[in-house]
Amino acid sequence: MSTFSPRLTRLIESLRRLPGVGPKSAQRMAFHLLDRDRDGAAQLSAAIGEALSGISRCPSCRMFCEDDSCRYCSESRRSTGQICVVEGPADLVAIESNTGYRGRYFVLMGRLSPIDGIGPDELGLRQLGEQLGRGDVNELIIAINPSVEGEATAFYLTEMARACEVGVSRIAHGVPMGGELEFVDGSTLAHALSGRTPV
Amino acid sequence: MSTFSPRLTRLIESLRRLPGVGPKSAQRMAFHLLDRDRDGAAQLSAAIGEALSGISRCPSCRMFCEDDSCRYCSESRRSTGQICVVEGPADLVAIESNTGYRGRYFVLMGRLSPIDGIGPDELGLRQLGEQLGRGDVNELIIAINPSVEGEATAFYLTEMARACEVGVSRIAHGVPMGGELEFVDGSTLAHALSGRTPV
Repeated sequence: MSTFSPRLTRLIESLRRLPGVGPKSAQRMAFHLLDRDRDGAAQLSAAIGEALSGISRCPSCRMFCEDDSCRYCSESRRSTGQICVVEGPADLVAIESNTGYRGRYFVLMGRLSPIDGIGPDELGLRQLGEQLGRGDVNELIIAINPSVEGEATAFYLTEMARACEVGVSRIAHGVPMGGELEFVDGSTLAHALSGRTPV
Repeated sequence: MSTFSPRLTRLIESLRRLPGVGPKSAQRMAFHLLDRDRDGAAQLSAAIGEALSGISRCPSCRMFCEDDSCRYCSESRRSTGQICVVEGPADLVAIESNTGYRGRYFVLMGRLSPIDGIGPDELGLRQLGEQLGRGDVNELIIAINPSVEGEATAFYLTEMARACEVGVSRIAHGVPMGGELEFVDGSTLAHALSGRTPV
């Protein structure tokens, strides 16, 4: 006989599929929803249903969107000459809300990782290649995280852009603002030094 | 203009209502559900709906249950002479799966806390009082966490049981198994010493 009743077990199992939620947290969440926040539970269930039926990918930049084209691609005042490539939606939002960049984006939704079966097609790179080939793009900005797969992805993107004769740049990796040289890791410091800019 | 589209915003806000989920985690969960686990999302939405419609409280012990009576109350081979009072469903499950106790339970779903508007009625203590008054209960086991409100609740329960002439006991508070006297906090050690048992 399992510990909980069937519906409660199913609820706990479903909550465990959320990232970062283990068995204990899932149990706590289930009890919280059932005991203290039934309104919140109903709202969550409805919000997931709505999101699943209404949110798809923008055909041009692959960001999540609710209409034919996402808000970033449909804004007419955006420069169309720059495309900033990011790994995921959260990266796009971080750049959009913290920087003055107002060009276009391209969201890979992942990194090249052949061992996990993620190749150029899974990341929509053919789509990006078509956009680069159209002739109206003059800069591809690579804003990929500096992990091993990220570096491979950045290298692939650089080659793609060069083949289309589009300029490529990469966001700077170096000492973070407020960080201290003494405590920064060696690899970051090496990047910071080799990427120094004339003043 | 808010950062995300309306449905995505609603999904993130709903996920934030789960305990222990902040804005960043909610965002990560939403992206995970939409990007990598649409099946899981549909399953979660359905599981919440099912749980809300099908799970209620056992009329006798207040544990979550799906039928007229919960599995703990409907088991005929359980001793009906003992009632173990716990704060929440997780406590019941912990006792049931780790100890040999096979009596009845009573789940308070909280602690007495007048400042939060939680009095005896909110914890179903009238219901418990009726059960104690019936005459077939000979021991009330208090398994409440030893917090300030917990102590107040335990005191209230003790008085209730005494008024009905039912024996009361409290689970032991002391040095945990594998713990070392040297590192145990003073209050626990004081409890352990005053609660010593003859060998």
